[in-house]
Amino acid sequence: MNAKSKCKPADLAILGGEALFAQKLPAGQVNIPEWERFEKISTGIFERKYYSNHGPLAQEFEERLIALFGTKHACTVTNATIGLALASKISGLKPGDRVIVPAFTFAATVQALTWAGLIPVFCDVDPLTHTMTAQTAAPLLNGPDSREIRAILGVHLWGNACDIESLDALAREHGLLLFFDAAHAVGCTHKGISFGNFGACEVFSFHAAHALNSTEGGCVATNDDELAERVRNIRSSYGRHATVPIPVNANGRFSEMQAAFGLLSLEDFPENCARNARRFHAYADGLKAVPGLRFLQASPGERHNHQYVILEVDEKDFGLCRDDLARILNAENVSARGHFMPGMHRCPPYRDRFPQYVHALPVTDRLCERVMQLPSGQIVTDEHIAGICALVRFVHEHAEELSKALQA
Amino acid sequence: MNAKSKCKPADLAILGGEALFAQKLPAGQVNIPEWERFEKISTGIFERKYYSNHGPLAQEFEERLIALFGTKHACTVTNATIGLALASKISGLKPGDRVIVPAFTFAATVQALTWAGLIPVFCDVDPLTHTMTAQTAAPLLNGPDSREIRAILGVHLWGNACDIESLDALAREHGLLLFFDAAHAVGCTHKGISFGNFGACEVFSFHAAHALNSTEGGCVATNDDELAERVRNIRSSYGRHATVPIPVNANGRFSEMQAAFGLLSLEDFPENCARNARRFHAYADGLKAVPGLRFLQASPGERHNHQYVILEVDEKDFGLCRDDLARILNAENVSARGHFMPGMHRCPPYRDRFPQYVHALPVTDRLCERVMQLPSGQIVTDEHIAGICALVRFVHEHAEELSKALQA
Repeated sequence: MNAKSKCKPADLAILGGEALFAQKLPAGQVNIPEWERFEKISTGIFERKYYSNHGPLAQEFEERLIALFGTKHACTVTNATIGLALASKISGLKPGDRVIVPAFTFAATVQALTWAGLIPVFCDVDPLTHTMTAQTAAPLLNGPDSREIRAILGVHLWGNACDIESLDALAREHGLLLFFDAAHAVGCTHKGISFGNFGACEVFSFHAAHALNSTEGGCVATNDDELAERVRNIRSSYGRHATVPIPVNANGRFSEMQAAFGLLSLEDFPENCARNARRFHAYADGLKAVPGLRFLQASPGERHNHQYVILEVDEKDFGLCRDDLARILNAENVSARGHFMPGMHRCPPYRDRFPQYVHALPVTDRLCERVMQLPSGQIVTDEHIAGICALVRFVHEHAEELSKALQA
Repeated sequence: MNAKSKCKPADLAILGGEALFAQKLPAGQVNIPEWERFEKISTGIFERKYYSNHGPLAQEFEERLIALFGTKHACTVTNATIGLALASKISGLKPGDRVIVPAFTFAATVQALTWAGLIPVFCDVDPLTHTMTAQTAAPLLNGPDSREIRAILGVHLWGNACDIESLDALAREHGLLLFFDAAHAVGCTHKGISFGNFGACEVFSFHAAHALNSTEGGCVATNDDELAERVRNIRSSYGRHATVPIPVNANGRFSEMQAAFGLLSLEDFPENCARNARRFHAYADGLKAVPGLRFLQASPGERHNHQYVILEVDEKDFGLCRDDLARILNAENVSARGHFMPGMHRCPPYRDRFPQYVHALPVTDRLCERVMQLPSGQIVTDEHIAGICALVRFVHEHAEELSKALQA
């Protein structure tokens, strides 16, 4: 690391200097168990010769998830995209029904609706929380696409609750189904209650880069017996307790190998969350004096996985826009990612099918220009973070000069 | 094993005797690599800390598949159901388009069309090959549902080719897309050419119980560069060579763990196929003198994986119907499965949405009553097969007496 060598703008890698880090620091990073632990848990799979179809490890993982979430049911699925598609398909919605969904979300949230034959109605988000609120959703219920709206799909972006109570009241008032994409929110709480307990159901992700990982994977958590049974039925005929009518089947199975990784990751989960939190606070502390940077904080008193280190860059106060800062950081081998580029309302096929939303979501558009993710995860050390913070401070201090140099 | 103890019908387990086998012989059986080999290939995953998103093992597996199939492309996917849904979605078909598909197939063939927003037009099959032919498909093109028919999805059931050349001619004549579900046909040939090379694309399955297995998994094989690129794009942003327009994305990724199992299974594939063939011929030889049983044979001169041991039971000649024979075998701990119960045209939601097909497929209905699968795979020995054949012969010899006893 060459943090001290940045004495003048020309020392920056983007202007020809040496990169701060010899190797790229990834934005998201996998927490991998030690081989010995993996060996211990997975040799049984080879003895049993049973891989797929809701085996003993998958069953154990579901039980542990139920304990973690405090829900009645946690139905594992191949991945969260499939989980959202399955949940949408068995929720009682019919093809062609419309679903209010934020455009400021990972693509999979909206794409899962499309796979289930549902039509997104794009909603703007709150500028502070980055999530949908009753206030941003309500106008759509009187808009031109209001007639076939049958559901609201909220997103707990970055592990922070969207406006659950107000959305619940709005959904009840209009007779809408309410369910949630909780992909980021494994192990997080809202008002002291774990995610998994809100709405009709909530869908979690255990992707390799997430706080709790099963390499790929996800689950649908719910307290609704009937809905859980439908998920188990549509996922496959294995692991179901009863046969219930569902519109179509799928292969959404969760393998024994996925379960093995998931169980090990569960063991490490409290420690990984604690480490994530330490990294998050190291960034927030290291950059608190820098104007124009705002970190997305967990709500006080809530449990949080701190999986994402997310901040907004205000060009006016910081001196450079998010894209310029990200370019500078990436040249130093610091993966600084924008989210989302662009919002789903401006992505194909939606921008062409629903042009009415392209210019209708000003907060989403603004956030898409300002939000940045910084590296966290297993391989990011305190020293890395100190170096990155010093670098960002240096960039801010030389913002005017850098702005001119980057334009040249 | 107590094969010799069956001297009289009352010795059968279903009538109170001792079961032929102490433990259940499963119908399909997993070929599992030795732990040491698995350890060797998978420790690298832990060193690289790269699990998902088209890693080096997934890339290597795709290269090996290309060599096996002799195709230009083999795009791995999470499972074959997802593979069929992705292939259907990027094939140029539009939601609401109709696709001719046999009803005598695994549920996933038809369900994948539904997930892609397409509508099945159910086709009957040839009584000898169990597969769709131009003769069974052609009448549908003049039927009441003919107007929106845009494609034919053939199925190479049990690893045997459906009527490829005639279907290709029919598709060309009517300007239809032709593609194939080749889930059973990994490593099989048609006229000396490996599956994967026919139609627009062919979708394979590497499910745990298949001849080539990656626990779960599948691939879309094709010689069409543009179509392959669309599969790589819709599967995820990883592993694509270029960005091409697709209707929607999905998470159809194939993990490093799946690839590790797939690569080991490829090493064993020739030997596993040879063992499958030996088991198949042991059954066919052991039962050739029994009237009313017809084994589905591979076409002479073709390569075949012999993954399934499939026979038809003719009640008139054998003396008992398939269901009674299957009940007797299952009581002896021999998993004898019927396929498919019922055909897809009689399964929800299709029977209710498309009642016009319920009574329109007489061959499919007849096969659904007659087809039976016998146990094969890693744990089934020559001795097991000899015992099962002796048992079936015994059942045939005492068919009249047994028929009365089962009715009582």
